[in-house]
Amino acid sequence: MVKREIKIGIIGFGTVGASAIRIMRDNAHKVETRAGAKITVKYIADKDITTERKVSVDKNILTTDAMKLINDPEIDIIVELIGGVEPAHKFIIEALKKGKHVVTANKAVLAKYWEEVMDTAKENNVAIYLEASVGAGIPVIQSLHDGLAANNIKSIYGIVNGTTNYMLTRMLEDKKDYAEVLKDAQKLGYAEADPSYDVDGMDAANKLVILSSIAFDAVVDLKDVYVEGISNITRKDMLEAKSLGYVIKLLAIAKDCGNGQYDVRVHPTLIPADHQMASIDDVYNGIFIVGDASGPIMLYGQGAGGDSAASAVVSDIIYICRNIVNGVAGKVPSVFFEKGADKAKIRNIDEIDFRYYLKFTALDQPGVLASIAAVLGNNGISISSVVQREQDEGKKVPVIITTDKAREKSMRAAIAEIDAMPTVKSKTLVIRIEKGE
Amino acid sequence: MVKREIKIGIIGFGTVGASAIRIMRDNAHKVETRAGAKITVKYIADKDITTERKVSVDKNILTTDAMKLINDPEIDIIVELIGGVEPAHKFIIEALKKGKHVVTANKAVLAKYWEEVMDTAKENNVAIYLEASVGAGIPVIQSLHDGLAANNIKSIYGIVNGTTNYMLTRMLEDKKDYAEVLKDAQKLGYAEADPSYDVDGMDAANKLVILSSIAFDAVVDLKDVYVEGISNITRKDMLEAKSLGYVIKLLAIAKDCGNGQYDVRVHPTLIPADHQMASIDDVYNGIFIVGDASGPIMLYGQGAGGDSAASAVVSDIIYICRNIVNGVAGKVPSVFFEKGADKAKIRNIDEIDFRYYLKFTALDQPGVLASIAAVLGNNGISISSVVQREQDEGKKVPVIITTDKAREKSMRAAIAEIDAMPTVKSKTLVIRIEKGE
Repeated sequence: MVKREIKIGIIGFGTVGASAIRIMRDNAHKVETRAGAKITVKYIADKDITTERKVSVDKNILTTDAMKLINDPEIDIIVELIGGVEPAHKFIIEALKKGKHVVTANKAVLAKYWEEVMDTAKENNVAIYLEASVGAGIPVIQSLHDGLAANNIKSIYGIVNGTTNYMLTRMLEDKKDYAEVLKDAQKLGYAEADPSYDVDGMDAANKLVILSSIAFDAVVDLKDVYVEGISNITRKDMLEAKSLGYVIKLLAIAKDCGNGQYDVRVHPTLIPADHQMASIDDVYNGIFIVGDASGPIMLYGQGAGGDSAASAVVSDIIYICRNIVNGVAGKVPSVFFEKGADKAKIRNIDEIDFRYYLKFTALDQPGVLASIAAVLGNNGISISSVVQREQDEGKKVPVIITTDKAREKSMRAAIAEIDAMPTVKSKTLVIRIEKGE
Repeated sequence: MVKREIKIGIIGFGTVGASAIRIMRDNAHKVETRAGAKITVKYIADKDITTERKVSVDKNILTTDAMKLINDPEIDIIVELIGGVEPAHKFIIEALKKGKHVVTANKAVLAKYWEEVMDTAKENNVAIYLEASVGAGIPVIQSLHDGLAANNIKSIYGIVNGTTNYMLTRMLEDKKDYAEVLKDAQKLGYAEADPSYDVDGMDAANKLVILSSIAFDAVVDLKDVYVEGISNITRKDMLEAKSLGYVIKLLAIAKDCGNGQYDVRVHPTLIPADHQMASIDDVYNGIFIVGDASGPIMLYGQGAGGDSAASAVVSDIIYICRNIVNGVAGKVPSVFFEKGADKAKIRNIDEIDFRYYLKFTALDQPGVLASIAAVLGNNGISISSVVQREQDEGKKVPVIITTDKAREKSMRAAIAEIDAMPTVKSKTLVIRIEKGE
């Protein structure tokens, strides 16, 4: 039987693009059997079409003009792999409007323009597939969307940023401090020269918008997501947490609070050392999902890297091809999303209750601990544990306090008051504690 | 818009069947939105239609005659949840022949009749979905089949039997021995009165046939799978393994050896204590999959329980409904399987190289260790480590030896020789060691 040929265009010839081409070539038999079609890369668009890549391609298919792909009536699928918001956003929207199915790994565009992208796909009866946008090759989008389709998702806890997870792991394991592990991460190519997108939590927040919008069938606005990065975390905190039975991870958390309200946030978090998420180390990613029927499910794998992301990209291409062959591409939904879907109501973090890990830096004088404890008590915050290690009197001493559950706004009020005390010498470090259930 | 109604019939009103009905009822909005159809359970067949279940249903939909469902032209989907080989096998085949799509959780039928079931589905242009047959609600079938579609699967390591994993975990954690943890497991409903199907590894072997047949696009014959259970494992072995930096797990292992040969087996295995699989405890399941592009991926969750399995069953029902609505049910493959697919060539375990953990029970006499070591050496087996703990001379003493890689048949020859020595007092325990890569 002669197979149908399906032509695709790839925008972005970086690491992932090159890996995708290599996989389609090396695993051609498997890929084409599963796709039910011969897949031909008609054009690859990139700003740079002269540098040699790790796969060799016919020079004639290279172009600097992405719109040439989008306007080509022979091309059925546009694979967008350039990253960043513009012009990627424009290319995705234009491709959908031209009736092309789109595969993208672009978390920044999806998080910022989720509703527009999904609505445009729906209006034009085309599919958008996005597995590689979160957790690279880990099939988390599909699992949330299809494998757990019967469930109301109660909560998601994600370690979705490899850079920060590498840094936190190394702080603990190699006994190095923040600046040093950041330098190591940069040397290894895990962190950018400007690491802020990763270390400030924005990368994780973008991914969380995607996961939670799918989980809750509602538009989660990036602006409603509370985001805090890891730059205040020290090696000493990692060790203190360990001695208390916890590990500090940068978690992307989404919870269904009931009453149509959701709790969606990214911040460093103490989780119990025996939790499955606690042993996800280095650049690995893990997403822990609690469905009301399935119970807890965790997916784990390489959250970054060309081959891993390309595994997801090529798998997405396979589904679309299979659906094209069967005449249902754009009908069988890639994302269950109603056009004009409701905006998710996100609860303000001030109104959420947490347990806290607090590190006060106080002068080692009589009565200091009592005065800190008094302020916490006056704000209705109960102390669960206190650690103050021996120091020379009169010097600065860290006091580690964990609390019972308290309202975030009460905690903020208490900390403002404590940080204004003359015996308190640095801004208090506040880290939330989660059981991860 | 009035939604299309799709009628289904459920054969087997046990725990999973009752949970599936509850989920379709409680999560009706989500399920029907995703299915694109209203789902009506027209009949439920069971041998026992009088005992009250945990969901109440209209008595008129209960029947003892499963063939009534299969022969009903209004029913599009048969959900088979009775377990065991017959009559479940007959019901599945008859339903497929009548043009019904089938959802099943029946690993025993699938493992024994994989080729017949898949070929019958193909011949009749209907779909068979089987997510619940391995790992209950963990979306492992879909991940292997779709999310990792671009990959050649290099290896699979599965903890897929909750009963044995519970027992091994408890032996280590509660310092109880085999007989006691088995009794506990029976009390908790994790083990049957006759526990042999679980403890002898057959349940895991059935699941491994399903996973490996999908992973390798070839028919893996259950009879070719090497199977060894956990009944020789003692608490002392768990502790010895721990002191060597390992955990003992019953693993279902499948590897692509290249050259069209596969290595497919179930046996107790020492895996490094820092491997992700090592911390999968109690009745939880985990499947570690290495794709050539994705790298290692692990899926983790509740591998048993009515709600977890029903999560998978209802998700499967959702896909079929969606495909029926789009006119492609039976076209979009649930399993990428060519009719008359090749039989997988399974390499005989005798021809595979392993590292081993060996426990000899020898008289504590001069020269005993030397004679054991000599036999190993004569069979070309190098010793990696030896532990012999202090005992009174003249008594029986366990000698723990780990080896470098050696061919299985050499090991068997060596052990036969050693076990025949008059100073060796019990059958030597042989456990294979895997890195899990």
